[in-house]
Amino acid sequence: MYQLFIANKTNSSWSLRPWILLQQLAIPFEEVQRYFQPDKKQQKLDFLQASPTAKVPALHHNGEIIWDSLAIAEYIAEDYPQVWPRERNARAWSRCACAEMHSSFVALRSQCSMNTQKFVTLDQIDSALAADLARINQLWTEGLTRFGGEFLAGSRFTAADAFFAPVVIRLIHYGLMDYLSPAANAYAKRIYQLPSMQKWLTQAEPEHDRPIRNP
Amino acid sequence: MYQLFIANKTNSSWSLRPWILLQQLAIPFEEVQRYFQPDKKQQKLDFLQASPTAKVPALHHNGEIIWDSLAIAEYIAEDYPQVWPRERNARAWSRCACAEMHSSFVALRSQCSMNTQKFVTLDQIDSALAADLARINQLWTEGLTRFGGEFLAGSRFTAADAFFAPVVIRLIHYGLMDYLSPAANAYAKRIYQLPSMQKWLTQAEPEHDRPIRNP
Ligand SMILES: N[C@@H](CCC(=O)N[C@@H](CS)C(=O)NCC(=O)O)C(=O)O
Ligand SMILES: N[C@@H](CCC(=O)N[C@@H](CS)C(=O)NCC(=O)O)C(=O)O
Repeated sequence: MYQLFIANKTNSSWSLRPWILLQQLAIPFEEVQRYFQPDKKQQKLDFLQASPTAKVPALHHNGEIIWDSLAIAEYIAEDYPQVWPRERNARAWSRCACAEMHSSFVALRSQCSMNTQKFVTLDQIDSALAADLARINQLWTEGLTRFGGEFLAGSRFTAADAFFAPVVIRLIHYGLMDYLSPAANAYAKRIYQLPSMQKWLTQAEPEHDRPIRNP
Repeated sequence: MYQLFIANKTNSSWSLRPWILLQQLAIPFEEVQRYFQPDKKQQKLDFLQASPTAKVPALHHNGEIIWDSLAIAEYIAEDYPQVWPRERNARAWSRCACAEMHSSFVALRSQCSMNTQKFVTLDQIDSALAADLARINQLWTEGLTRFGGEFLAGSRFTAADAFFAPVVIRLIHYGLMDYLSPAANAYAKRIYQLPSMQKWLTQAEPEHDRPIRNP
């Protein structure tokens, strides 16, 4: 059985990705949680037991440690091909979208760090954040239009939806939904309402007095 | 036939990854070069014809654009499985290594930007760069020991070697080879001497008077 190491549901955006992927596809896994700590040295010692980078998520399976979210998606896809769309072009598009999320959107990630317990209204946004929002809107609108489904790459929830799930939380919690096209806006609301998303948000609530990553 | 859009060989580290992968595996492709420009608006217009993010590399194939290096590796792997190691554990490890390269090593990437035309000696390095070097050394040494081959994940050149090829250039050109274990040091020298690496370096030479990305 897969063992998935994650951190605080409140603000471990990277943990949410494989977690919601496994949940939505109803793939059995055991969840192991490690919490962020005020003492970073102690945290590092703890997290090193999950992953050689002292970062989560990490998947443990058959004695192997898979220590990155994108590699976890590919690893799971070897057992469960439904992680990716069946059609080659949609699969290629999805992998590009996931890899772009993995390396980009620095302004959004740093200025609007995920916090499931907080709702914030930004008075104004700088040009770097505006560019990230424009690109996210372009990408989502393209996927929804091109593949014509309820999800980014068609009619099923796949890895691209999982990779952008934390972005959905950010957009809703920072009041940024107006930067989206009607189709992308409706998509974000749909993802936020998914049972597995609601489960994550509810399970995050008891963490409210724990130290978070970026206080 | 695959069409691979790349930028200056002098300093487009991301372009080098799929290029050297295709070259080393002797996979046929057509190379299309776009150069960095002093006028960033003009460059963006040019690069947008290669990729929706105005960044390279991008692979064009059968009317599809694959606009990220990691997604390109996976796309090619569907046609040529030798992109990844045959053994599942080595494949999982390789994907983690590539994904870690894709999202991390910020200090190395920003402080030692790749420039094939320059050799620099750093007088001292800060703690962030030291941490990146320590992690690279750990990762390479682990791969070489665990899989016991001349390459990171065994006896064949695979995607992990391609993803770290620009790091090899950085380490050699910034005089950082002493931060490596003997095994990792020998590995870096081996990669630098590969015919395809030497071909890239030689083809970069005529670019010496062109504007580069980070002057
Ligand atoms: N690229 C990694 C990123 C993982 C990451 O940054 N994880 C954060 C939590 S969201 C972490 O564990 N941070 C530890 C720390 O900040 O000390 C992946 O995709 O898995
Ligand atoms: N994560 C992307 C990164 C691509 C990237 O940053 N490419 C650089 C060249 S090495 C680029 O095109 N930059 C355009 C610019 O800086 O304007 C990938 O893996 O393909």
